[in-house]
Amino acid sequence: MKSELRTHLPLSGDTAFLLARANARSLAAAHDALGAHGLRVRSYSVLALAAAEARLSQRDIAEYLWLDPSQVVSLVDDLQQRGLVTREPDENDRRAKVVVATDEGRRLHRAAARAVREREQETLEPLDETDRDRLRELLMRLAFPL
Amino acid sequence: MKSELRTHLPLSGDTAFLLARANARSLAAAHDALGAHGLRVRSYSVLALAAAEARLSQRDIAEYLWLDPSQVVSLVDDLQQRGLVTREPDENDRRAKVVVATDEGRRLHRAAARAVREREQETLEPLDETDRDRLRELLMRLAFPL
Repeated sequence: MKSELRTHLPLSGDTAFLLARANARSLAAAHDALGAHGLRVRSYSVLALAAAEARLSQRDIAEYLWLDPSQVVSLVDDLQQRGLVTREPDENDRRAKVVVATDEGRRLHRAAARAVREREQETLEPLDETDRDRLRELLMRLAFPL
Repeated sequence: MKSELRTHLPLSGDTAFLLARANARSLAAAHDALGAHGLRVRSYSVLALAAAEARLSQRDIAEYLWLDPSQVVSLVDDLQQRGLVTREPDENDRRAKVVVATDEGRRLHRAAARAVREREQETLEPLDETDRDRLRELLMRLAFPL
């Protein structure tokens, strides 16, 4: 594309479009980094939440990742078959199950997270540290409105 | 989800995750707004570029929207069948075609753009005008690195 076009098209002033395009770049980078670890962006995100201390239910995970609950069930099935997560009873709700990473799941998550972070530096390269903090703070307010 | 969790999970400090979640909210809002106009987010984006003065080729559109060229061909086919865009010869490259909105396409684009903007105010509600400008500026640098 002629480079002068990039900033002079109607969608360039549109936050939704800029979000979508920045996200597309970021997803492509994460996808690249995760391939070597046998993960995709969604399975990685579920594994990351399972490796956290929070003991989230599948419903919590779906809400957090903005996915359909049925998608989360199938992602958890896949990770469970690979021995990376288990489903355990939720102490607060007997009808629900929480998703918890196994030791092997935690190891894979650490390696994958390192690869993602390294690759992310390239995507974030146009921003210095102050701007990165500012961006995270603004996105946090959009991603999790009160 | 327990609200204290939202900001205390491992992915909450992760720019890629925040981008993805903010984008998911924004896409859901745009999708809602566009349904009444018979458009989806991707067909709307192609129509918006066709309605611009820039006379973009399908390849330019694919690059701009970060889509596969074959996806753009099929989106343009669909818009053309509905009488919203035409393909015209590119004056700068005889092998290429540019995508141009018809009068009807322009009318639909104006109405759809208004609906999207109105609905976007809700997504952007957590940010004041200064923060919105700042966010656009930061996203622009990520979306279109030099």
